[in-house]
Amino acid sequence: MSRFFSEKYKELEPYVPGEQPRERKFIKLNTNESPFPPSPLAQRMAREEAGILQLYSDPSCRSLVLAAANCLGVEENQVIFTNGSDDILNFAFMAFSDAGHPVVFPDITYGFYPVFAKLNNIPYETIPLREDFTINVEDYIGIGKNIFIANPNAPTGIALPLCDIERIVASNPDNVVVIDEAYVDFGGESAIGLIDKYKNLLVTQTFSKSRSLAGARLGMGFACSELIQDLETVRYSTNPYNINRMTMAAGVGALTDKEYFIECTSKIRATRERISKKLKEMGFFMTESRSNFIFAAHPAISGLDTYLKLKDMGILVRHFETPRLKNYNRITVGSDAEMDALCDALAEILKAPNPAERTDL
Amino acid sequence: MSRFFSEKYKELEPYVPGEQPRERKFIKLNTNESPFPPSPLAQRMAREEAGILQLYSDPSCRSLVLAAANCLGVEENQVIFTNGSDDILNFAFMAFSDAGHPVVFPDITYGFYPVFAKLNNIPYETIPLREDFTINVEDYIGIGKNIFIANPNAPTGIALPLCDIERIVASNPDNVVVIDEAYVDFGGESAIGLIDKYKNLLVTQTFSKSRSLAGARLGMGFACSELIQDLETVRYSTNPYNINRMTMAAGVGALTDKEYFIECTSKIRATRERISKKLKEMGFFMTESRSNFIFAAHPAISGLDTYLKLKDMGILVRHFETPRLKNYNRITVGSDAEMDALCDALAEILKAPNPAERTDL
Repeated sequence: MSRFFSEKYKELEPYVPGEQPRERKFIKLNTNESPFPPSPLAQRMAREEAGILQLYSDPSCRSLVLAAANCLGVEENQVIFTNGSDDILNFAFMAFSDAGHPVVFPDITYGFYPVFAKLNNIPYETIPLREDFTINVEDYIGIGKNIFIANPNAPTGIALPLCDIERIVASNPDNVVVIDEAYVDFGGESAIGLIDKYKNLLVTQTFSKSRSLAGARLGMGFACSELIQDLETVRYSTNPYNINRMTMAAGVGALTDKEYFIECTSKIRATRERISKKLKEMGFFMTESRSNFIFAAHPAISGLDTYLKLKDMGILVRHFETPRLKNYNRITVGSDAEMDALCDALAEILKAPNPAERTDL
Repeated sequence: MSRFFSEKYKELEPYVPGEQPRERKFIKLNTNESPFPPSPLAQRMAREEAGILQLYSDPSCRSLVLAAANCLGVEENQVIFTNGSDDILNFAFMAFSDAGHPVVFPDITYGFYPVFAKLNNIPYETIPLREDFTINVEDYIGIGKNIFIANPNAPTGIALPLCDIERIVASNPDNVVVIDEAYVDFGGESAIGLIDKYKNLLVTQTFSKSRSLAGARLGMGFACSELIQDLETVRYSTNPYNINRMTMAAGVGALTDKEYFIECTSKIRATRERISKKLKEMGFFMTESRSNFIFAAHPAISGLDTYLKLKDMGILVRHFETPRLKNYNRITVGSDAEMDALCDALAEILKAPNPAERTDL
């Protein structure tokens, strides 16, 4: 830290992204990437931009806005695009919250929410999930604070039904409710259909998971035109050209190629169900995931041990060594072959004597 | 504006980007884009990423950091990459300035500085340029505030010599001095060589102009490792994956292909000098530009009139209708053919009777 770093950030603890190892080839099941490449249309459209990169991208993201209007059935003034969905989540913290408008979110959820809150000096409270990692909807009814809920939640994968989301939104008319739907396309119910009815609802989505564009960085938000306009004011005051030409084109391709989108998300859901069954047979406990990952614990081995042994065997999963999560690992649903390799590795780990026990001999 | 928009932003006036017209094909000399496509190597490397966009980009930007170290002679921990240079300028406002550490910059400079200051609630003062649009270096000596100077400056194109930059940096050891070198490759002297000597110096550059990557969105900053670390803390607390795979690859290609870089920047400088001479012969007054644009006024016609007539004729330039700038237009140095078309159009405009006079008849 330099002596010039502003006091206001001296306590800031940045977000820690999942490992991106370079030294070795892993089966990567740790950052919820898709096992499938982007839609061929998205790839082709992105490549076509490479030769005209000397020209700025369109700050109004017109092509993306039109594609969203056509493919997702929203009005053109009800959508905003950002450089990944982290960008719009940060904008939402900035635009609608401040010292007088604090924020609440579950204690276990996307780890970036508290970072955004601290970055923007916004008071926040966390509300514990129940023991079984579900959200107690009553906790949020009429709470009178801005709310961020990931639905499905991370790293649990558990989803709230749309009727519960609506109750939360309806009961907090003087606060903004942000529903972060990064994983919704794998089995959740989207709240996009509610943006006409509720002027206090912002729904965010990402192209990183279900649309195979994690490396392109594209997120989107849906809300009534007034909320979108506020978010645009923040975007035009930070980085109006926040989306590059190639990503913009890839996004249009990904929205347009609905068939490929359905094919990929269906395959991932089928693999998730098949592997969940196998893991259950091996004695794993799992939450009911509506996402592209499985959140699993085993009574015979700690989460950390499982993580380390899998890593030794060339398979990366995501481990959080915190009190409520340390028994678990978050395992991305990869290809069928990758997931079969995972099951084989876990079977081998469970067969071996526990190294902790061996040390005690 | 929604009723939820935070009080702190209610007075915020977003940056207004240059026009990006879609309805008609213009000769675009209004946003300082390069007339040349990106380096063929940059194009090829960007295209190669399109098929693996399902994987996140590397948040540490390792490939870019290594390319910068190899090609620009800095240490690996002395450089940071961002989503366009607006991103790093914003980070610099955030990281080093606050209510107790105000900012100064010239009254005429990049229009985004006051927006960043207001966005981050940072007090700022502007220091008027001299009548001839030059910076009075004495104004900044020992001023004891954080300083942002675009060198060459925009929209004037005038550059300070490196010795003056060094005097400013050396005389303000307790403040951060940011030298924004967006246009330096067209004839300015870079301050990158001073970052080892001065721990309070941050130099920012962009790939948008001299490296033909405006549409890819890539900026970079150079400073001692401590300042870079502070900026990384802010980056990892807002958007660690801020640069996508394709842009990262294009950036590596652009840094590596030095020959193409030198060829393009040399051509633009030669065209600038040739056209400046022609404009002078036509009666235009111009600042001494070290950038990829010309800042020109004519005694016989207002800046706005010139801008509007050129637009009518299919040529877009950038006009700022503010007291000190309204006589001028900022004209990007395009290809030789584009600039010849500009000169022809200006000659025609100057030949025609002035419509303001005609109205008076």
